[in-house]
Amino acid sequence: MNSVKAFAPATVANVSCGFDIFGFAIQEPGDTVELYKRDEPGIVITDITGDEGRLPRQAEKNSVTVVMLALLKHLGISDLGCEVVLRKNMPLGSGMGSSAASAVAGVVAMNELLGNPLSRKELLPFAMEGERIASGSAHADNVGPSLLGGFVVIRSYNPLDIFTIPVPDDLCCTLVHPDIEINTKDARFILRNEVSLKNTIAQMGNVAGLVAGLMKADYDLISRSMVDVIIEPVRAILIPEFKNVKQAAISNGALGCSISGAGPSMFALSRGIENAKNAGKAMQERFASAGIDSAVHVSGINQGGAVVL
Amino acid sequence: MNSVKAFAPATVANVSCGFDIFGFAIQEPGDTVELYKRDEPGIVITDITGDEGRLPRQAEKNSVTVVMLALLKHLGISDLGCEVVLRKNMPLGSGMGSSAASAVAGVVAMNELLGNPLSRKELLPFAMEGERIASGSAHADNVGPSLLGGFVVIRSYNPLDIFTIPVPDDLCCTLVHPDIEINTKDARFILRNEVSLKNTIAQMGNVAGLVAGLMKADYDLISRSMVDVIIEPVRAILIPEFKNVKQAAISNGALGCSISGAGPSMFALSRGIENAKNAGKAMQERFASAGIDSAVHVSGINQGGAVVL
Repeated sequence: MNSVKAFAPATVANVSCGFDIFGFAIQEPGDTVELYKRDEPGIVITDITGDEGRLPRQAEKNSVTVVMLALLKHLGISDLGCEVVLRKNMPLGSGMGSSAASAVAGVVAMNELLGNPLSRKELLPFAMEGERIASGSAHADNVGPSLLGGFVVIRSYNPLDIFTIPVPDDLCCTLVHPDIEINTKDARFILRNEVSLKNTIAQMGNVAGLVAGLMKADYDLISRSMVDVIIEPVRAILIPEFKNVKQAAISNGALGCSISGAGPSMFALSRGIENAKNAGKAMQERFASAGIDSAVHVSGINQGGAVVL
Repeated sequence: MNSVKAFAPATVANVSCGFDIFGFAIQEPGDTVELYKRDEPGIVITDITGDEGRLPRQAEKNSVTVVMLALLKHLGISDLGCEVVLRKNMPLGSGMGSSAASAVAGVVAMNELLGNPLSRKELLPFAMEGERIASGSAHADNVGPSLLGGFVVIRSYNPLDIFTIPVPDDLCCTLVHPDIEINTKDARFILRNEVSLKNTIAQMGNVAGLVAGLMKADYDLISRSMVDVIIEPVRAILIPEFKNVKQAAISNGALGCSISGAGPSMFALSRGIENAKNAGKAMQERFASAGIDSAVHVSGINQGGAVVL
């Protein structure tokens, strides 16, 4: 095989009450990576589109190639020559798992080029290294679902323990990206290091409710459980119109609505594509009434994650 | 109907990572309540066995009758005359849901005597009033499973939102009651009011894992998720030999082991009755080697909760 093209989807992390533990993949948008073998050894980025020139072009600094270098090192391969093209289809720092999608597409493409020496799940630690380069910490709540698809739970980071849970077939996601920017590190910095026991218990109850609601296809329970008493109240202040946009989503058919990742994107979950579209329209209108442009993505939950095209 | 007899099972609350939100019922032991109509109005406790004379005999001070009085008041019934016999089959303050079992048996018996004006779930707030009398706060994690059976999740207290999740058929419980006593109020008092965000996230991950593990019948996941980083490390100091007893359970077939309720009882969950028995034997031996007598109860998970006999 001399060339490979792989797609990895955008993802919603920190799903409502599930800060750092829940993430899911959507069907689109997503990033694609193209690899072309060449005779001279070494990984070279030859083109990146859609990043407005902001991502580093050196292989050892860009998450899309850092993951490939880590994989090659793990496999003891030092003589591979390869040109890399990254096509980004989502904005950076958007809360849509942009760096994760690039890292996952990169590592899946390279694994394919090598004849798939590792399984999907075995690629996860390498994809997480891409997250470390991009955001400073090796989180799995974006790369996990982008790689594996579905609704992912990260039970533990040390040791890494990740699994997927089934979701109802007609669960749909609305992802709205307002044209503002939040620095992921800032979004983490403003969080308190201590949580009251009362709020911890409330959050645990909602985590239990959301898992059970998704697995039972109990939409009422999903809706009641989409409550975040710890992170959302703090981070919401970074997103203008947050409360109104959330209310607009819920008033127009969404089961619940919260911040996607570290923001500024917001997501809603709905039963059926029509509710998801209506919620998206209402959310976009609400942002617009405050003078903020936004992009809306309506999609089912991605089952399967990244694909080789 | 002139007389009624009802049974309500013992329960395990604060199940591992699920402080205040998880509880389940076991098949035995349990308390029974007998009601006998009489001509003179008023609720009178005529006999209590198994409490070593420690429970109040006045109807307005004992949780078994407080729940009946609350139910009668709610229904606008003031002229009922009734004698109450309570047969306690578990020790007080044991962490086995003793007060809850009495309250639930009481309210189920009275509802039956009245021709079942309320549904099972509608009886819950009355049973919770019994808990308030017994322990100072109206918790639902013992009365919920004793009343409804199965593995219960309390998603929220305000408003009350409680549901059951399915558990694998061959999940068994070992409940070991060492012959020591802990005051429930003390056990709550020593807890810290603040939890680190890191521990909150770890606990949330385990809560999600335990719910998913039970619903998927994934025993490995159940086992990995039976980790409590918040409550158990604090309360374990009140139980002599806790670490060794827990290790004995896990080394002898249990999936996991933790404190039952506020202690001093300890519970283990196992796959199959043989593992549950082996774990119980090992736990009892470990307590015995420290000079502590203990009672062991091995049982499946109670499905259905309290029953009219």
